[in-house]
Amino acid sequence: MSIYGGIDLGGTKIQAVVVDAQSSPLATARRATPTAGGPADVAAEMQKTLREAAAAAELEPHALAGVGVGSPGRIEGANVTSASNLPDWEGTFPLGDVLASALGCRVVLGNDVRVATEAEFHLGAGRPYDSLLGVFWGTGVGGALILAGETWLGRGGAGEIGHVVVEMDGARCTCGRRGCMEAYAGRAAMELHARHLHEEKGRGTDLFKLMKQHQRTRLTSGVWARALEHGDKLAIEVLDRAVSALGAGIASVVNVLDVEGVVLGGGLGVRLGHPYAERIAGAMQPHLFADSQPPQLHVAALGDLGGAIGASLLVRSEG
Amino acid sequence: MSIYGGIDLGGTKIQAVVVDAQSSPLATARRATPTAGGPADVAAEMQKTLREAAAAAELEPHALAGVGVGSPGRIEGANVTSASNLPDWEGTFPLGDVLASALGCRVVLGNDVRVATEAEFHLGAGRPYDSLLGVFWGTGVGGALILAGETWLGRGGAGEIGHVVVEMDGARCTCGRRGCMEAYAGRAAMELHARHLHEEKGRGTDLFKLMKQHQRTRLTSGVWARALEHGDKLAIEVLDRAVSALGAGIASVVNVLDVEGVVLGGGLGVRLGHPYAERIAGAMQPHLFADSQPPQLHVAALGDLGGAIGASLLVRSEG
Repeated sequence: MSIYGGIDLGGTKIQAVVVDAQSSPLATARRATPTAGGPADVAAEMQKTLREAAAAAELEPHALAGVGVGSPGRIEGANVTSASNLPDWEGTFPLGDVLASALGCRVVLGNDVRVATEAEFHLGAGRPYDSLLGVFWGTGVGGALILAGETWLGRGGAGEIGHVVVEMDGARCTCGRRGCMEAYAGRAAMELHARHLHEEKGRGTDLFKLMKQHQRTRLTSGVWARALEHGDKLAIEVLDRAVSALGAGIASVVNVLDVEGVVLGGGLGVRLGHPYAERIAGAMQPHLFADSQPPQLHVAALGDLGGAIGASLLVRSEG
Repeated sequence: MSIYGGIDLGGTKIQAVVVDAQSSPLATARRATPTAGGPADVAAEMQKTLREAAAAAELEPHALAGVGVGSPGRIEGANVTSASNLPDWEGTFPLGDVLASALGCRVVLGNDVRVATEAEFHLGAGRPYDSLLGVFWGTGVGGALILAGETWLGRGGAGEIGHVVVEMDGARCTCGRRGCMEAYAGRAAMELHARHLHEEKGRGTDLFKLMKQHQRTRLTSGVWARALEHGDKLAIEVLDRAVSALGAGIASVVNVLDVEGVVLGGGLGVRLGHPYAERIAGAMQPHLFADSQPPQLHVAALGDLGGAIGASLLVRSEG
């Protein structure tokens, strides 16, 4: 029986999984994504993570039928260019070849958000549907579309829901543009906004104390979740703003595409879970043109393993 | 050789066309859409318009191989429900049967914006592309999508680009919602905004004088075009606001779908033409995620006949 590997390369964490022929996880491993260095350092951390997962499954990496990688940035064959939210990765790096050589097995690259959406479509919350919008609420806000059962690529760049405009001349996005949904809802933008309110506007918050207590260097999804549990007013306010933006942006896409289902994943989506999915559905409602027939909104059923499991599907479809 | 009829039912005008087997117009006719009365009055005006076109082609309507109708509202078989921007048409009206009985030939109904987009795709500016976004800038802002060569319907309601949110908590739309693209760019919303600035804010403008001079009861596309020629400052300001909203909204859809082409039609789109298409492309640019690869933006090549010609295609595809 063939065993496959999958790696999800995120802006915050690297998640690896080893799965059986039914895509059930046999072992997993996770490491923080390097915040300094460059693509080669990220690749080194990725192969360590995959090795840990393989070791936990009592396998050598070269015994795997292949390893799929879900990556941000532009993917062309074995190369990744302009991977946003990763250190010094504006240029092109031969990630596929570097990993294949280090692991001793076949490596196939795919877009991180697309493979996670395909995992939910085939194995998770999207199974009942023929058309699905995947929204990955994490460091940025990624999106992918499945229409009539197939991932819609457009000219190659489809799915950039994070850069749907929710406010003309609005907040500056981490991409440099103005008014993008991600400028309000991305974890990176939320952290900048919280820091601005705290440090420059003198607003009180426990967010940065919690970050230090938990030995984080960023406001991770876990830090946000804990601040909410503590009733931190600034955290609540910044998240309310994110929910409003997600509601407007997702509703806009639904008005145009009228998909059957929406799956909410990503670090924040999975961590904040069902109560926040309900709030986002509520924020969508006043903007939906067919408001008597909202699409179903689900939290990603594969949780934060979806990206890595989806990546492992890449080796199969090309196998 | 079969001859076909097509009727485009718009919020401002009813356009009829009689075409040959190659979809070339043999004759056309146009009447104003009734602003009072109800669906039966609109239907009566529609059959008069088609009769005029048929007479100009020296034909009786019953000699046509069929008449296609592009209509706003929800279309179910021969019925049209909730046709926005038409008088007293919130309920269901059997438009197809009424027209078939009055004209003595087969009548097929379709969505106005979808048939116009299909006409541009098969016969007009969209011919080079496999994926196309149709944006119809008129009384409202309608949209339709062709993906991989086929109209994308979603669950039946896809294409509502006018209700993409460009400003959270923004201007009130004629649909009742807030911040929709149409709230800034629809001709009806632009007229309300211009009237508000003129009557309540005391801003000077020749828009309403031009409207009366040309015996109009609304600020038609022609009135806007003339005001622009006169350098009317308020008209320029309201149109600038519309262009910004169209740029943000269309760019949002392009970021998600990455279509090859965009066709700009509708009363305002066709009347203001290429210079405004260029301005809208310019307003899209700062919001495009793949800004080095903008989609091609064209003015509808079939002009204001596209809707009626597209409607005539309905009789063929069902013929």
